[in-house]
Amino acid sequence: MRTAFHEQLETLTQTLSDMCGLAGLAMDRATQALLEADLSMAEQVITDHDQIAEMQKQAEETAFVLLALQSPVAGDLRLVVGSLQNVADAERMGGLALHVAKIARRRHPNHVLPDEVRGHFAEMGRVAVELGDSAKDVVVSRNSTQAAEISREDDAMDQLHQQLFNVLMDSEWKHGVAAAVDITLLGRFYERFADHAVEIGRRVVFEATGETAGP
Amino acid sequence: MRTAFHEQLETLTQTLSDMCGLAGLAMDRATQALLEADLSMAEQVITDHDQIAEMQKQAEETAFVLLALQSPVAGDLRLVVGSLQNVADAERMGGLALHVAKIARRRHPNHVLPDEVRGHFAEMGRVAVELGDSAKDVVVSRNSTQAAEISREDDAMDQLHQQLFNVLMDSEWKHGVAAAVDITLLGRFYERFADHAVEIGRRVVFEATGETAGP
Repeated sequence: MRTAFHEQLETLTQTLSDMCGLAGLAMDRATQALLEADLSMAEQVITDHDQIAEMQKQAEETAFVLLALQSPVAGDLRLVVGSLQNVADAERMGGLALHVAKIARRRHPNHVLPDEVRGHFAEMGRVAVELGDSAKDVVVSRNSTQAAEISREDDAMDQLHQQLFNVLMDSEWKHGVAAAVDITLLGRFYERFADHAVEIGRRVVFEATGETAGP
Repeated sequence: MRTAFHEQLETLTQTLSDMCGLAGLAMDRATQALLEADLSMAEQVITDHDQIAEMQKQAEETAFVLLALQSPVAGDLRLVVGSLQNVADAERMGGLALHVAKIARRRHPNHVLPDEVRGHFAEMGRVAVELGDSAKDVVVSRNSTQAAEISREDDAMDQLHQQLFNVLMDSEWKHGVAAAVDITLLGRFYERFADHAVEIGRRVVFEATGETAGP
């Protein structure tokens, strides 16, 4: 028999999963806005973020009601508390996509990215979508193997981020300080997006096994 | 009569408060490490961060036990959930101080900061300490007026951050791209430190009044 607890937990989990998927979609669109200097795409990401913020409120409310009325303990309590923490990470992922879109909008109609780094951002955008999708799936499946996949995607992001820095630091860089500042911030936003997905994956492993995933 | 609930909540609140104070202290020291290219000070911030991370675990454990054994509802539940969220922000504040210290260490024995921006960072460090102290006090006092003070300090931080960007973007900037990249990241770390303190202040207002503080 499905209990009220499990129904409410499923609602919470589904909202969290949807938030992760939407954050990935937002980063995908923000990356397109960046690559194509596409103002309407940037505007869409900025407008759509309200939805993610609204879902965060809903999820927090669901978790609150669940704790108040069902008083879960042990593993069930751990799931609810973990979901509450994951919701904060998912919202932040959406917030980072928003920041990327805002930089694209601020520089429009100019392109933010010199040609040397377009490929890096296209690839970081692709990895971000994978991370959003992995987080979306793993909070539902609670599959530790799938959670480990997130760490591999994060490694790919870190490598891209490092390569990006190498390009910036190259003495051949001729696009000036203003472009370097934008690109530094943008790189940081993608890196943080990945970090939050990693946090979500770690919590899922912890909830499933009681063990903290390394490193 | 003091109940077990109130004793455990007080332990949780005290740990959170201590974490905020330590995060402020860490940012103070990280700023000194940056201004003086002081390697041992940077190392101390990096080592001390383990303590903040350990306190986060303790606080999460206290909150978990409290939820499991006391099943608080209504305002009491809101306090526990809010504290759990605040603990994540306080840890992050410490993490941002750690990032600042790591940049100081990475560039040692060189100074990261050209003279034009030393004053900005000295001032951002000062505001960060104020923010840490305000957060430390407000989670205990739950005083809305004190929470509003955090917003004012955040405004000061935003203004300093903006001024820092103006210096970077100035056509007179002659310290190259590598220094600009470091300073962009550093500026972001101080700004985010302030944002997390603001989040803590907002939650305290919400817990005290049930109203979300604007904007």
